[in-house]
Amino acid sequence: MEQMNTAAAKSIRCRAAVSRVAGQPLEMEEVEVAPPRAHEVRIKILCTSICHTDITFWRMEGNHPSIFGHEAVGVVESVGEHVQEVAVGDMVVPVFAAQCSECPDCLSDRSNLCSKLPNVAGLMPRDRTTRFSSVSTGEPIRHFLSVSSFAEYTVVDITYIVKLDVGFPPAMACLLSCGISTGVGAAWKVAAVEPGSSVAVFGLGAVGLAVAQGARMRGAKRIIGVDLNPDKFDVGKRLGMTDFINPNDTGGKTVSEVIKEMTGGGGADYCFECIGSTSVMAEAFQSTRNGWGKTILLGVSGNKAPISIPSHEILRGRSVIGSLFGGIKPKNDIPMLAQKYLDKGKSIRCIIWMDGAKERNSRVFDSALASVAVVLESIRSEGQLWSLAGVTFLDFLGV
Amino acid sequence: MEQMNTAAAKSIRCRAAVSRVAGQPLEMEEVEVAPPRAHEVRIKILCTSICHTDITFWRMEGNHPSIFGHEAVGVVESVGEHVQEVAVGDMVVPVFAAQCSECPDCLSDRSNLCSKLPNVAGLMPRDRTTRFSSVSTGEPIRHFLSVSSFAEYTVVDITYIVKLDVGFPPAMACLLSCGISTGVGAAWKVAAVEPGSSVAVFGLGAVGLAVAQGARMRGAKRIIGVDLNPDKFDVGKRLGMTDFINPNDTGGKTVSEVIKEMTGGGGADYCFECIGSTSVMAEAFQSTRNGWGKTILLGVSGNKAPISIPSHEILRGRSVIGSLFGGIKPKNDIPMLAQKYLDKGKSIRCIIWMDGAKERNSRVFDSALASVAVVLESIRSEGQLWSLAGVTFLDFLGV
Repeated sequence: MEQMNTAAAKSIRCRAAVSRVAGQPLEMEEVEVAPPRAHEVRIKILCTSICHTDITFWRMEGNHPSIFGHEAVGVVESVGEHVQEVAVGDMVVPVFAAQCSECPDCLSDRSNLCSKLPNVAGLMPRDRTTRFSSVSTGEPIRHFLSVSSFAEYTVVDITYIVKLDVGFPPAMACLLSCGISTGVGAAWKVAAVEPGSSVAVFGLGAVGLAVAQGARMRGAKRIIGVDLNPDKFDVGKRLGMTDFINPNDTGGKTVSEVIKEMTGGGGADYCFECIGSTSVMAEAFQSTRNGWGKTILLGVSGNKAPISIPSHEILRGRSVIGSLFGGIKPKNDIPMLAQKYLDKGKSIRCIIWMDGAKERNSRVFDSALASVAVVLESIRSEGQLWSLAGVTFLDFLGV
Repeated sequence: MEQMNTAAAKSIRCRAAVSRVAGQPLEMEEVEVAPPRAHEVRIKILCTSICHTDITFWRMEGNHPSIFGHEAVGVVESVGEHVQEVAVGDMVVPVFAAQCSECPDCLSDRSNLCSKLPNVAGLMPRDRTTRFSSVSTGEPIRHFLSVSSFAEYTVVDITYIVKLDVGFPPAMACLLSCGISTGVGAAWKVAAVEPGSSVAVFGLGAVGLAVAQGARMRGAKRIIGVDLNPDKFDVGKRLGMTDFINPNDTGGKTVSEVIKEMTGGGGADYCFECIGSTSVMAEAFQSTRNGWGKTILLGVSGNKAPISIPSHEILRGRSVIGSLFGGIKPKNDIPMLAQKYLDKGKSIRCIIWMDGAKERNSRVFDSALASVAVVLESIRSEGQLWSLAGVTFLDFLGV
């Protein structure tokens, strides 16, 4: 039985934080959100968080005007034709990666990158048009990663939607839609960290901290955090890290030299790069052991720079593995992670609530703090519509 | 019960092809081969073949005077103290990689790089001295990769020795000691090629052809060979290749573009680089598909150049995996490969017999043909002592 669909739904006018100029504060505007077309869902956003990838693209020319944001949770407001998987009122997490469940990639355990409906820059993935337009000028506004959650309402393809149980805490759910799943998935699914292993994590933002949790869940014995900001070490410890390296405080040694010393001379079994810096990627590679050392790359570099790996060193049984979304297949794996979380916990990420503050916390753990502040300031200056909420972190282990 | 050991064995004088100057013809000299010390074996070489890695190091400054050669088979002539694993008269294959069976790497399924007794440049791995010296001057001569098979006798650490059944054909056995095992192992153990896959092999020397065989044994559906020498395509077909690309004959397209077309737009599931060229490594990477494409590096680059991989492309679920010896654990895997070969077959590699020609074949399939010829000429000019034998190829499939 078809649900109420496009024919019945009308355009909605709502507020959105529109990015009009690369790197400049977002502008709070009234936008028109078209009804969902076939295979699409319109969502009322409950809350959203900011991922470093938002910042990376916000800074980049050529992506404007655009509504950023891709970590969110919301409630289905209306659905287009042929949508059976969710119904009006369902709590859903929009994600930046599709799962069509039909293409060779979706049917394989080895890939999480749908090859039938990949992201189309700035547009909806299926018909390559936009559902957003400016109320004042009528001009179209671009989508971001098929999500665009810095708005009160958004339209998302059904292949980019994961349904969650209604009882799940929204602020936690929005974290599962990108960063936390990416980190936990990278340790769990991409690296498949073995019990007793040594692990080094480069960059202790939300993703890096989630890697530590994933590695700890997999039984890693030693988890070394690397970050320039020593304030991150406390929370890292709570989430399972055993050692910390501040690259500015190594007495002149390279980070890879320190990691080799810490691991008995050989290097770590697994190194995770969670920053998107090609020089850090090279250092992470240098920190892995011969024989089976794996370097897992999660961080997206803004400038498409190449990674440089010494060929004679990788030959000694090492590998470099790239992954998006930590190998997570959204519709299969996010409900599983949500279940794991139900032990309740803490989270660390800026959460922006769409209707008044739910909680507050003064600590913002993000390496792009300054940039985030610019984005947030433009949202916050609008007063009570959206409020900056707590900075917390999903804790699957209940520590 | 201890066998006759060092105490009883004396130095042997024999002939060896000594490399005295980088890139210059080898000199046939009389050398003294000291008795095996504890944990060592002295071997009478039956035959040896030339691997491209011999050429790479022969060209390099700083490795001379040296006795190259590391693909060989021989008969145990005497053993040092504590050697129980082989006895005088056994047919053995010396290999360039140790298996001590005690260290974390040898005890793990994930590594084939012994961390207890790695190669020591130019010297025996255990006491870091040499067993070779010049008869005329007494000066020490360096070992190569713990094997040094361009000599009638050599001394090898027991951890670098694999025992074979006496009935196994020696010319085939020597190929198992490096190139063929490397190629088959890379497809089998390192990549674990899945049935129905598409595979591209860059460089159709002995290693690349063995990769094709290994991929075929694993059920690959499409095996694309890439080589500048079209003469290699015939033998490639016999060994299971389905398609060929000559990079000089692509109508201006890059090899990766041609491979993407051949594989329906996505790229190959697995690409193997068997040359040691960092630009070919980059092209091999470009030829892999998103989602799960693996680039396996087997070729040793002479100049320690870095590989350059675009970070935004590897993030799309691709990986780059380095391996030495195709992930082969010598003492476990070479006897298994020998058993597979007993179906009889063909081989393609220069085989140098130590005492008179066994077979002849005019075709030399090696991209370093000119360099090999220099080495071979210096050996061949010595007349009948060592003769250049056939160029054939192990065929595990009996095609």
